[in-house]
Amino acid sequence: MECVGLSQVVFFDLVQERIARVEERMLSQTERHNRELRAAVGHLVASGGKRVRPAVALLTGEMLAGDEERLITLAAAIEMLHTATLVHDDLIDGSLLRRGIPTINAHWTPGATVLTGDFIFAAAAKLAAETDSVAVMHLFAETLAVMVNGEITQMFASHGVADRENYYRRIYAKTASMFVLATGAAAYLSPVDAAQEAAVRRYGRAIGMAFQIVDDILDFVGDQAAVGKPVGSDLRDGLVTLPAIYYWESHPSDADMGQVLGGDFSGAHVDRLIESIRNSDAVRQALEEARDFVRQAVDSLDAFPPGPAQQALIALAHYIVEREV
Amino acid sequence: MECVGLSQVVFFDLVQERIARVEERMLSQTERHNRELRAAVGHLVASGGKRVRPAVALLTGEMLAGDEERLITLAAAIEMLHTATLVHDDLIDGSLLRRGIPTINAHWTPGATVLTGDFIFAAAAKLAAETDSVAVMHLFAETLAVMVNGEITQMFASHGVADRENYYRRIYAKTASMFVLATGAAAYLSPVDAAQEAAVRRYGRAIGMAFQIVDDILDFVGDQAAVGKPVGSDLRDGLVTLPAIYYWESHPSDADMGQVLGGDFSGAHVDRLIESIRNSDAVRQALEEARDFVRQAVDSLDAFPPGPAQQALIALAHYIVEREV
Repeated sequence: MECVGLSQVVFFDLVQERIARVEERMLSQTERHNRELRAAVGHLVASGGKRVRPAVALLTGEMLAGDEERLITLAAAIEMLHTATLVHDDLIDGSLLRRGIPTINAHWTPGATVLTGDFIFAAAAKLAAETDSVAVMHLFAETLAVMVNGEITQMFASHGVADRENYYRRIYAKTASMFVLATGAAAYLSPVDAAQEAAVRRYGRAIGMAFQIVDDILDFVGDQAAVGKPVGSDLRDGLVTLPAIYYWESHPSDADMGQVLGGDFSGAHVDRLIESIRNSDAVRQALEEARDFVRQAVDSLDAFPPGPAQQALIALAHYIVEREV
Repeated sequence: MECVGLSQVVFFDLVQERIARVEERMLSQTERHNRELRAAVGHLVASGGKRVRPAVALLTGEMLAGDEERLITLAAAIEMLHTATLVHDDLIDGSLLRRGIPTINAHWTPGATVLTGDFIFAAAAKLAAETDSVAVMHLFAETLAVMVNGEITQMFASHGVADRENYYRRIYAKTASMFVLATGAAAYLSPVDAAQEAAVRRYGRAIGMAFQIVDDILDFVGDQAAVGKPVGSDLRDGLVTLPAIYYWESHPSDADMGQVLGGDFSGAHVDRLIESIRNSDAVRQALEEARDFVRQAVDSLDAFPPGPAQQALIALAHYIVEREV
């Protein structure tokens, strides 16, 4: 699905062996537990994505000279938390495929799927506790609260809203918060001062914002066959993302957009609007904004001496906007 | 719903003011969060039950001379965890009432209900982290994993099984584990030795086992109008609880029971079997077993000098089997 560029190879090579250990830690959480649960977690880990979040935690911790063993535990906690939210999200959205592989809810009842997600939350919390850092636990639990609060807000109050502040809050809660967890918690496990901690948090926030903006762009221009969703699926759900906001700002009297903002998310006007956005300058503008976030992320790493981990974090930031686009 | 006896008054009087602070801590978790979420948590806290779990944590900590403020945080974490599991359980079971009050899923979509439960898990984890004890966090996360694993095992593998070991494992995971959390975590926040910690864990396990056995008895003989479920609802779900196990042990050739154990959980034979169990000695035998657990619980408190908290814990143990029965 991704075009594997040089940047990707650079940062993944550096963490590949540790990512394998992260996956082992994730799988070990179901030892002594129910057979179906072991199968479900095994399936989820085997069908895992690019492990960007654990890579960010591991590389940040390496750059900050943190303890490797505790960083692997942290990375496993973060990827478990991410996995748990995906299990519940796929249930809520009724998604039967993720990355081309059947979801848990494609096989199991809603009840079993809810419980599987709950178990993975518990496993994530156990791993977070195993970092032996109260500060990590605090940030971990706070991040989960922010993410879920964001999802509920989106569910109740974000449909048909074309507002930048609302959008940034939404993508911070949905995506960037977990990258702040990855970098901030890695800092808690490392010998750093407050300025360095703030710098890696800025890095995390910026790549997280860029990551979600690119996801939102791909919803308009990505390879839909691979994604398994129709073009413009967010807009069809009433979610106005950055490309649509840019389009609306430069076409304030677009009738199709007016209808969407009036609460009508299905019909020929939505198909037309998606085509209009795809053919407008909005996608390029949104991508430019994602690249701005990447520049912010890279700038925030100036605070640290150059080295392989810092270089890998720079490569990772660039990878985030260059994947698939 | 309960007959309020002297024992109940004794232990609730001692903790009443602290329970009010526990509820404040629970409610404060939704500050700065989504309006609907605030309303949901407010509804859940207002319709809360007897607060037996926080009372156990508070009284155990008081007996062990633990820090009061941290114990209140712990008690709030435990009641939040309990509340989160109820939100997901009611969704999974399709229960529209709990304690005569509409459940979250009675008002909201399944998706919003899943997320509300997730948010309350996050709030519980935040509170657990605020005890500033890594040991508490470990036990908290481990307990959640045990509970969810138990529910999944029950869902996949406990139907039509009349086996004491299976039953004890099930009620430990479902109920007793959280009482072990309440007492064990209170010990972590108190100046105790390993023997004292083990003693309060034994107390927690024993009252938890008694609590669930009494719940299982009430499913056969309780005030069904108040419970809002038909008599013998567990058996109708294929769950063979202690009264049914006692009945089966003394009536090994009962044809109706044979049919249930063969996997047939509906029909006239189930109605007949429930009546047979109600009219047999099985309910008294199960209650006697619950009282044995209470005696074990009270005995485990011998390790501590007498005092108001110890007396209240004794009263609470007795209350657990005398409520409603």
